[in-house]
Amino acid sequence: MEHRIERFVKGDSQLIRLKPESDLLETLNNLVERVGIEVGVISGIGSVGPVNIGYYDFNKKEYRKNHFKGIYELVSLMGNISVKDNKPFCHCHIVIGDKDGKVYGGHLLPGTIVKVGEFHIDVLKGTPPERIFDVTTGLHLWNLKL
Amino acid sequence: MEHRIERFVKGDSQLIRLKPESDLLETLNNLVERVGIEVGVISGIGSVGPVNIGYYDFNKKEYRKNHFKGIYELVSLMGNISVKDNKPFCHCHIVIGDKDGKVYGGHLLPGTIVKVGEFHIDVLKGTPPERIFDVTTGLHLWNLKL
Amino acid sequence: MEHRIERFVKGDSQLIRLKPESDLLETLNNLVERVGIEVGVISGIGSVGPVNIGYYDFNKKEYRKNHFKGIYELVSLMGNISVKDNKPFCHCHIVIGDKDGKVYGGHLLPGTIVKVGEFHIDVLKGTPPERIFDVTTGLHLWNLKL
Repeated sequence: MEHRIERFVKGDSQLIRLKPESDLLETLNNLVERVGIEVGVISGIGSVGPVNIGYYDFNKKEYRKNHFKGIYELVSLMGNISVKDNKPFCHCHIVIGDKDGKVYGGHLLPGTIVKVGEFHIDVLKGTPPERIFDVTTGLHLWNLKL
Repeated sequence: MEHRIERFVKGDSQLIRLKPESDLLETLNNLVERVGIEVGVISGIGSVGPVNIGYYDFNKKEYRKNHFKGIYELVSLMGNISVKDNKPFCHCHIVIGDKDGKVYGGHLLPGTIVKVGEFHIDVLKGTPPERIFDVTTGLHLWNLKL
Repeated sequence: MEHRIERFVKGDSQLIRLKPESDLLETLNNLVERVGIEVGVISGIGSVGPVNIGYYDFNKKEYRKNHFKGIYELVSLMGNISVKDNKPFCHCHIVIGDKDGKVYGGHLLPGTIVKVGEFHIDVLKGTPPERIFDVTTGLHLWNLKL
């Protein structure tokens, strides 16, 4: 089949303000673990900098890291929460914008620092997808059978 | 009035993993038809390539197609599901990012191929908006009277 | 603490079609005030132009405005609704795309004009966050104590 679709019941919503100078990805990961959100959808806007953005190289099977100095608008953060290594895990992609409105984006990596941030978690209820190592891609993908 | 707003009750949520090498837009359209989701909101992240992105030219009343070779991060997919020609129909916009974090974006067209993809559908309940041909723009717009 | 998280119960969803030539931000702000949505999450896609995009300069404590002439795909609008000066207030960031798929983005400012627009508001229920002037940043931030 071309896809696997899994139904979840909606839970609560969470609005989140992050502290200036915190690491965006680490803080989101700590937060979902502490609050116990194992499956959900994340979105958010704010300001960030410096920023580390990843691009997955399917040949080398590793992320190439692009580093951006300075402060940027966090134009969009979009991602999801599932379980990896028995812990809640946030997988997020971001778009950032500079002073002229030029934008950059990719996979959110550690080392991206929050200036101000307003985030939303759409909490879902059901058996959380687990991320399992996939030999073909080298990525940890959801255990939703295709 | 400057807007038309229509209320829906929240339904379930669906998490979706798409098969590598499937056509992103066609697969989403097949999926919502098969599962019977007539109104909802879609978001997602992943990797895609090659990619076809559209820009709507209001003078020519047609999409200009931009083709991107290679593999890109799917930085964001944002869209909605409503009814067109008596079938569920996905209208999506995407942002893609290259190996240096440079980004491109616009209207998702057929011919955009999934490498890996994690999507969320926020299913809504209520009378689905229908897309009706609008002579002024040449687009199929929601039949929510303005 | 590195973050403050606040729980909300999900309300209804609203799908919105905006009238051509209306001001995107002003119309969204009028709409949430008229309908009485004090807390929620907004997303949307469409076409816009001309466009005013802001970049917040933390040194000058003001937005730098970038103006874009012509018509663009509204590739993504992502934002939230909370309360500022006792009124519902929309804070949105946008990505726009030109005829070649090149993209720009940042904080949505007045003067951004809708050509066609399809938006979704995820209405939340609970005590709305209020925006309070923050001396350190010069911004009006949520009164969620850190």
